Amino acid sequence: MSWEKIAQEISIETPSKIILLVLDGLGGLPIKKETELEAAYTPHLDRLAAKSVCGLTDPVFMGITPGSGPAHLALFGYDPLKYLLGRGILEALGSGVEVGKNDLVARGNFATLKDGLVIDRRAGRIPTSENEKLCQRLSSSLKSIGGVRVAFYPGKEHRFVVKFSGEGLSDALSDADPQKENMPRAPAQALSQKASKTARVVNNFLDKVTDLLKDSPKTNTVLLRGFSKYPSLPTMSELYKLKPAAIANYPMYKGLARLVGMEILDTGQNLSDLLDTAEKNYKNYDFFYIHVKKTDSAGEDGNFEAKKEAIEEADRYIPRLTALQPDVLAVTSDHSTPSLLKSHSWHPNPFLLFSKTSQPDKVTKFSEIECSQGYLGRFQAVYAMPLILAHAQKLKKFGA
Amino acid sequence: MSWEKIAQEISIETPSKIILLVLDGLGGLPIKKETELEAAYTPHLDRLAAKSVCGLTDPVFMGITPGSGPAHLALFGYDPLKYLLGRGILEALGSGVEVGKNDLVARGNFATLKDGLVIDRRAGRIPTSENEKLCQRLSSSLKSIGGVRVAFYPGKEHRFVVKFSGEGLSDALSDADPQKENMPRAPAQALSQKASKTARVVNNFLDKVTDLLKDSPKTNTVLLRGFSKYPSLPTMSELYKLKPAAIANYPMYKGLARLVGMEILDTGQNLSDLLDTAEKNYKNYDFFYIHVKKTDSAGEDGNFEAKKEAIEEADRYIPRLTALQPDVLAVTSDHSTPSLLKSHSWHPNPFLLFSKTSQPDKVTKFSEIECSQGYLGRFQAVYAMPLILAHAQKLKKFGA
Repeated sequence: MSWEKIAQEISIETPSKIILLVLDGLGGLPIKKETELEAAYTPHLDRLAAKSVCGLTDPVFMGITPGSGPAHLALFGYDPLKYLLGRGILEALGSGVEVGKNDLVARGNFATLKDGLVIDRRAGRIPTSENEKLCQRLSSSLKSIGGVRVAFYPGKEHRFVVKFSGEGLSDALSDADPQKENMPRAPAQALSQKASKTARVVNNFLDKVTDLLKDSPKTNTVLLRGFSKYPSLPTMSELYKLKPAAIANYPMYKGLARLVGMEILDTGQNLSDLLDTAEKNYKNYDFFYIHVKKTDSAGEDGNFEAKKEAIEEADRYIPRLTALQPDVLAVTSDHSTPSLLKSHSWHPNPFLLFSKTSQPDKVTKFSEIECSQGYLGRFQAVYAMPLILAHAQKLKKFGA
Repeated sequence: MSWEKIAQEISIETPSKIILLVLDGLGGLPIKKETELEAAYTPHLDRLAAKSVCGLTDPVFMGITPGSGPAHLALFGYDPLKYLLGRGILEALGSGVEVGKNDLVARGNFATLKDGLVIDRRAGRIPTSENEKLCQRLSSSLKSIGGVRVAFYPGKEHRFVVKFSGEGLSDALSDADPQKENMPRAPAQALSQKASKTARVVNNFLDKVTDLLKDSPKTNTVLLRGFSKYPSLPTMSELYKLKPAAIANYPMYKGLARLVGMEILDTGQNLSDLLDTAEKNYKNYDFFYIHVKKTDSAGEDGNFEAKKEAIEEADRYIPRLTALQPDVLAVTSDHSTPSLLKSHSWHPNPFLLFSKTSQPDKVTKFSEIECSQGYLGRFQAVYAMPLILAHAQKLKKFGA
C-alpha cells in the first residue's frame, strides 16, 4: 500500500494549520570550517530548534542531487521516483500558462545563429521587453502547424514557453538544442514510435520560426527543451484533505505548487511581502508553503557571504511566523546548494518541526551537523509530509 | 524509477578516483565491554574518521544476516533483494571458470560414503593435490551425460566446481547434499516443472561419479550445492560509467567482482601485496575495490584477538591508501562477523567516507557505536554507492 493510498484513507479535515517554510538550497558545506548556516547569526531559528524535533532529509535518496521538481514533490509528499516532471511543464505552469491534456509545452530560448552555427544559446540575454515583442510578432504570424495550434508566452530575458495544442501529441522528444555553442541547430528527435508525428510538427515549427526571425540578427532562431505534457498528479486536497496555498515569487515554485493543487497567492518580491501575504490570508487556508529563493541563488553564485545574509534575513522573519501560532511550523530546504559547489548538491537538508505534539530533542542550534543529532535522524524527504500532517493531528490511525 | 535506471541516466565519466576498502566481517560485538574494532589500536582509521562522514549500514535490511553475495552486491549498488545469486556461480567465477548462458554450475564436495550413509561431508578435508588428481580422473572418464557436457574444476581441499553445458538447463534444483552426516546421499530435486530434465541429468551424473569413485574409500562420492546459471547483471561500467578493478585474493570475492564487470587484478596473499597492486595499477582504473579477508576469518573462528590484530594490520596500511589521494576513500565491511557469534551476523557495518565534498561530522573514532552518531546515520548499504559516486562528482542532477 502506497503512502498516497494511505493518505487518502486516513487524512481528515481539521481546523489546524500548517506552515512549511522552504529556504531553497539552505544546506551547505564548510568554508573556513563553517557552513553558511553555521556562520549565520540565527537566534530565532536556533530558539525554534531548541523547542522542536530536528533531523536531516534526503530529497530523493543518499547521493542524488535533485532538480527543484523532484526536491519539491518529495517535500509535498509525492514520491519523486514515481512522478517525473519535465522542465517545460514547470516553466509553463510557473508562467501562468494554462495547460490541458491535449497540450504539449516546452521551454524556449531565443538564440543567435551565424553561418549555420548557434553562436549564442541565450541571444546575449536580451531584455525581457524585446522578448515580449518577439513573442507577439511570432504569435501573430504563426498560429498553427499542420493542424496543431501554437502559442508563445514570453518569460524573462531570452526565455519563453511554447504550447502546442492538438490530439495525439507526445512528449517523448529529445531537446531541440545543441547543448553547446558553435554547433548546428539540433532537431527534436522522437524517442518513441508514437512521437514521430510530434517530432515532425516541432521541427517544422522550428524551421518556420527561424525563417520568420531571419531579419533579427541577434535573435534569429529558437531552441526548445524539456518537452512535456501535463502530468496528472493527485492534488494535496485529494490526498490530504488540505486547503493549501503557496506564497512564492518565482515561476518554477508557483508552477510546482499549482501542479499539486495549491492556490497561488499574489505576493511581492521581498520577504516582508511573503509574510504580509501569509498574514493576510492566514484564515483562508490550512497549509501554507512559503518559498524563499535567495538562499539558493546566493549558493548557486558561490557567494558564501550573500547566502549567509539571506539566511540571516529569513531568520529575522521567523517571529512573524511563530506569531501566527500555526499548529505545525516546519523549516527546511528542498535541496542543498553549497556555495563551495555553486550548484544543487546531494547533501541532506536540515529539517525542523515545531508543534505542541513533539518532544523537543537535544538540538539547540539549527545547522546541518546539529540536525544530524536530532530525534528524527536522517530520513527521505517524502516522509516529511506524513510527519507534518501527523503533528497537525490530520491523520487517523492506520489499520485496526 | 529505480536507482539502476537513474544511475545510467545521471552518471558521468570523470577523472576522479574512488577506493572502496572492504574489511570483511569488520563489525563485531563486545567481549569484556569492547568490540574487536574498539579494542584494536587504529590511529590511522581514527584520524581518517575525524576527517570523514560516518554512519552505519545494513547490508540488506535490519535483522538480516547476509551471505557474502548479497552483502557485496549491496555495497556495489545492486539491490540484493533483486539480484539473487547462487553459491555455485560465485565459486565458479572465483575459480576462473568461464560460465556462459547455457551453463549450469554447482559447488561440489568430495565426501565419504559408508554403508549407504554419508559419514564425512568433506572427505576429511583431503589435500588439494589429491582433489586435483580426482578431478583429472573424473574429467577423462566422464565427458557428458545424456548430451549435456560436464567439466570438473578442482578447488581447495575437498571443494570443486562442476559445470554442466547444454540447452535448457535450469537452476531450480535443491542441493544434492544431505546437509548432515550419517544420512543417505540426497538427490537433486526439481523445484519447478522446467527443472525436471536437469534433475535427471544431475542425479544420473551423481550416480555415475559415485560409481567411478567406488575404489577410493575416503572420496567415494560427491555432494553438489548451489546450482546456478549465470545471472545477467548490468556491469558497473554500464551503470556508473566506471572502469572498476578488484584487488582481492579469495575466489568468492574475485567472483563477485567479476560478476559486476570489474577487472580482477593479479595480487598476492598479503595486505602489502594488495597495496602494491593498488599502487601499481592506480592510473589505469577509476574505482578500486580492495578486499581484506582476515578480519572475517578470525571472526568466524571466534578468535577475538586475531580479529583485533587483523584490524590493526589493516590500519597500518591506511596511510598507503590516503597517499594515493583518491577523491573518495570509503572504508566499511560487507557484513559483521562478531567473534562472539563465530559467524556472519545482522549487525550493521561501520562506514566511513572521506572526500573533499563532505562536511566532517563529530565522529573521531572508527567504531560501531561512534559511527552510529555520524552524519550519515543508519542506512541501507545499497545507498553507499550513490553516495560514493556523488562525492566523486560522478553524478549529474536528477530531474529539472
